[in-house]
Amino acid sequence: MREGFACHALSVDYGQRHVAELGAAARLAGLLGARAHRVARLDASIFQGSALTDAAVEVPLDGATAGIPVTYVPARNTILLSLALGWAEVLEARHIFVGANAIDYSGYPDCRPEYLRAFEAMANLATKAALEGRRIEIRAPLIDLPKAEIVRLAITLGVDPAMTVSCYQADDAGRACGRCDACRIRRAGFEAAGVVDATRYAKRNKPR
Amino acid sequence: MREGFACHALSVDYGQRHVAELGAAARLAGLLGARAHRVARLDASIFQGSALTDAAVEVPLDGATAGIPVTYVPARNTILLSLALGWAEVLEARHIFVGANAIDYSGYPDCRPEYLRAFEAMANLATKAALEGRRIEIRAPLIDLPKAEIVRLAITLGVDPAMTVSCYQADDAGRACGRCDACRIRRAGFEAAGVVDATRYAKRNKPR
Repeated sequence: MREGFACHALSVDYGQRHVAELGAAARLAGLLGARAHRVARLDASIFQGSALTDAAVEVPLDGATAGIPVTYVPARNTILLSLALGWAEVLEARHIFVGANAIDYSGYPDCRPEYLRAFEAMANLATKAALEGRRIEIRAPLIDLPKAEIVRLAITLGVDPAMTVSCYQADDAGRACGRCDACRIRRAGFEAAGVVDATRYAKRNKPR
Repeated sequence: MREGFACHALSVDYGQRHVAELGAAARLAGLLGARAHRVARLDASIFQGSALTDAAVEVPLDGATAGIPVTYVPARNTILLSLALGWAEVLEARHIFVGANAIDYSGYPDCRPEYLRAFEAMANLATKAALEGRRIEIRAPLIDLPKAEIVRLAITLGVDPAMTVSCYQADDAGRACGRCDACRIRRAGFEAAGVVDATRYAKRNKPR
């Protein structure tokens, strides 16, 4: 929006463990003045095996481990970006923004800049817009930013970080567990930024 | 299956005008010995504007026109292949087969070989498998075949063409309208192959 775009916000309900992030996205989209916020619903029961969609797999609470984490959802960003590409075609939008971040957490293959460039190349062969000479651009403004910079940017842009949800297993009220990788990395970002962490934590899991 | 693969079949219910093709896919997958057949459900109400998903847009019945047809669904093959990629990761499958065909009907940007190559390149950056050195291959065995060859191939492989659905607006029993582009192109394929067209047509729309 700071760059003058008319923003249409897309969330995807793909069977993630909690829906608190969908509510948070809707509230922020409304507050910040997005033209629209839509939720695409996908029955992703085919994506068994990820801690984020499969209730039989535990979210790890003991810190980051080496390699690709069990919270990796197969082809998730590809599916999210594909849905965004479909809506972009309907809207005749030329830019798709995605919040991928490669710095603090490089275990996800589909958060890498080279992946996003390959998606963009594919998108520019996939679409009616491309056939008609209108290029689609995939932008990931957060991709190179450390979490501390993201915290500062949010505050600069008037986004209240307390309204956002990062936790892999937030409760229905959007309160974070304080223990999963996403919570640990987020909290370290607030510390590094020198900003008070206003994240709402569930009481019994409050970080010590 | 002829090449020795253990086949897992995926259909997507994305709000297409009829679900007859989903039933046909399930029956054929079972008959031909697929290990599994799954239907991923996607609420694609964001994809307004295509005759295949938007009841307000009429399926054209008066023959093919120039350019991209109104039956084009935004980013459809990208979304279908992305879902297949997600399931392939879960299954640790290395090959994804898709029925795209570029010859008889070149109006769809996402049925072109260069598009499929770009999707494959993207997939090989997107996935855990790719990070671990296992390449994903996207194959479109029908891509270069005229419809007549597809009819002959089906018969050679023991697929009863009468069990398949091509029509854009088949009725619930899977009977074809005989008038939409998909019906016209399919019928021409049977004629060119010299094979009796055993397609079940809805009586009131039986081709003259």
